Amino acid sequence: MVKEKFPEVIKSPESSRVYFDHNATTPVLRSIIENSSEWLTQWGNPSSIHWSGRGPKKIIREARKKIAQKLNCSPLELIFTSGGSESNNTVIKGVYESFEQKMRWSPGDEHRNEYITTGVEHPSVRKVFEYLKSKGKTVHFIPVDREGVVDLQNYQQVLSPRTALVSVMYANNETGHVFPVKEMARMAREAGALFHTDGVQALGKTRIDLKEWDVDFASFSGHKFYSLKGCGLIYSKTGNILHGLIQGGGQERGRRAGTENTLAIAALGDAIDHLNDEPLYSAQVQELRNSIESQVLERISGVKIIGQGTNRIGNTSNLIIAGVDGETLLMNLDLQGFSVSTGAACSSGNPEPSPVLLAMGFKREEAQSSLRISLGWQNTQGEVNEFVEKLEKVVNKLRSLKDSNG
Amino acid sequence: MVKEKFPEVIKSPESSRVYFDHNATTPVLRSIIENSSEWLTQWGNPSSIHWSGRGPKKIIREARKKIAQKLNCSPLELIFTSGGSESNNTVIKGVYESFEQKMRWSPGDEHRNEYITTGVEHPSVRKVFEYLKSKGKTVHFIPVDREGVVDLQNYQQVLSPRTALVSVMYANNETGHVFPVKEMARMAREAGALFHTDGVQALGKTRIDLKEWDVDFASFSGHKFYSLKGCGLIYSKTGNILHGLIQGGGQERGRRAGTENTLAIAALGDAIDHLNDEPLYSAQVQELRNSIESQVLERISGVKIIGQGTNRIGNTSNLIIAGVDGETLLMNLDLQGFSVSTGAACSSGNPEPSPVLLAMGFKREEAQSSLRISLGWQNTQGEVNEFVEKLEKVVNKLRSLKDSNG
Repeated sequence: MVKEKFPEVIKSPESSRVYFDHNATTPVLRSIIENSSEWLTQWGNPSSIHWSGRGPKKIIREARKKIAQKLNCSPLELIFTSGGSESNNTVIKGVYESFEQKMRWSPGDEHRNEYITTGVEHPSVRKVFEYLKSKGKTVHFIPVDREGVVDLQNYQQVLSPRTALVSVMYANNETGHVFPVKEMARMAREAGALFHTDGVQALGKTRIDLKEWDVDFASFSGHKFYSLKGCGLIYSKTGNILHGLIQGGGQERGRRAGTENTLAIAALGDAIDHLNDEPLYSAQVQELRNSIESQVLERISGVKIIGQGTNRIGNTSNLIIAGVDGETLLMNLDLQGFSVSTGAACSSGNPEPSPVLLAMGFKREEAQSSLRISLGWQNTQGEVNEFVEKLEKVVNKLRSLKDSNG
Repeated sequence: MVKEKFPEVIKSPESSRVYFDHNATTPVLRSIIENSSEWLTQWGNPSSIHWSGRGPKKIIREARKKIAQKLNCSPLELIFTSGGSESNNTVIKGVYESFEQKMRWSPGDEHRNEYITTGVEHPSVRKVFEYLKSKGKTVHFIPVDREGVVDLQNYQQVLSPRTALVSVMYANNETGHVFPVKEMARMAREAGALFHTDGVQALGKTRIDLKEWDVDFASFSGHKFYSLKGCGLIYSKTGNILHGLIQGGGQERGRRAGTENTLAIAALGDAIDHLNDEPLYSAQVQELRNSIESQVLERISGVKIIGQGTNRIGNTSNLIIAGVDGETLLMNLDLQGFSVSTGAACSSGNPEPSPVLLAMGFKREEAQSSLRISLGWQNTQGEVNEFVEKLEKVVNKLRSLKDSNG
């Protein structure tokens, strides 16, 4: 492990803690903290044509250019938003609106009023499709099996000349499973439908080449990638019409109104520099993840690793640990200094089991025994070894308590 | 002038410049810059239930409580957004959606499908109402006269049991004119309609007491108030149902999805501390504004001050300077080190004259000769005097050039 090659992130206030919840959010790069005072001196409105607007405008232009280069698209194909949820909402509601208002596309497209997604999307996608359903639209939720694998045959069946938009996440936030987005986008294209991918869990964890993905729209988020909260991205392929979710001023070429968040955009531009080294980082993170999994399987009985044999993002592991309540496990591990999760952070504290795992066919009891580990650049083999040790002890304790109570 | 009592803002990189464009954006308070590194160590996801979420959650809870206290509302009536444009879009589209989906209100309310606003709103309000018009809704744009005064008789006429929502800005961003929001909200209430005010230009410039305003919804923005870009507010009175614009996770009690921008929320909480001293600051800023106006009227001929005799926010002055192109004037003043504006920053660079001034009945030529000065806490009498001197010279130069060309 060439540990010193990783970019430094800021220490948490309680630095003895070990953070294994990078799919929820990431620590911020030290370079961003160090530069932020300087960026904050560029407080002008980027739309102002006098001196105070020029600095911020330049910062935004350069960040956009750099990000476009790294993701392999044109700068004008990128729209800055406030985050991944806004990006997902904007694309899906925007495409829906453009079809409703017949702003597009080719002749015959006015009949396109069906939508396709999977049953395991992030809430900011799932809830928007539930909203479209409430508006009377047909939405097909393609089933996903217990390993996370999507039913491509079903997808082919529901794709039709009535399909307006397909939205499939690149990588699942709870299991790490990677969907065959390239293939699914090609199938959508053949049916004349638009294709969106929620790429929030992909940025920084796998190579992203938007030309190669060949999708119409993609969403990304800064704070899942060692950058600041408050900045996300939409990739919108040249020529695509997208009705704005936040309307008003002419920012982002009229596609997203509101004064730009110069600081958070500059920070994302800073973080993106590290994408060059992503393959190296990801390989090392994956090694750690695999080490956790093999140690856990060796030392703890009754554990199922979701999607272990499938194509997964290298940092994520979702364990179903029989006879143990995930939330209780999480809190016990927290007391031991380890941060893990039971599912999406935005559903935390919700006593209901993960809708994603239920949609994959897990029983309530199984879903409630799930533990998500998501590693990051700064994690070490030492932390991993210590974690497995603590996990084993806590699981044994909880199981024995259950046996004596039960 | 008790100048030393003003909170310090950060210096611009070109500190010899004088900034008179505070309605576009404001410099950031030094205290925010100084605290931001500390806030950034709280990078956890506020929804995470392990240790990393607790610090950010506490920061957000405390900021919300402090802001609610200062604006005189309950903490749960505040929703953090990414800015004023998102706040305006969320309220207007959200109310529209709740009526469309019959999520509300009393019996008979299903017939409420008309909307009322003024002709001089910010684009993030105006364009949303144009969108509602495109959806077949009736939208009444109440006329406003050349002084900025709204036609209350017309308002009374168009208010009816069919009115769903009225949206009227608290203070106009281009002229500073203050609308009779309390009275208009009362009239809306009597007609059973909901009332929203875009308060973006009010925060920090006048006393805000939401109980006294007695509106259903209000919008605010951090970066117009010496805080960071990327954070706005919605006030939503207890009991009001608002369909979310950004749907997904359960943040902000399900009213606004997306990981919270802890840093920008903390910063807004910091800035709000200064609201106590707002009456003092505003009085001093108004003195400077009045000084500019009296000096300009004395030294430059053919100048009309829009709405001079009306109730205006104390920091704003909009001059129509006969025979001078506003954009050319702006650029000449920029070269002299002074930042002013010709209208909303988000419309800058647009060769069209201000739609606000056109809606007020000004001719194109008049609207194209307008100059907006908007002062801030750190401006001084010395800057004001120097500005008037430079303005006189530039106006004389441009007028003589025009005469010799004409």
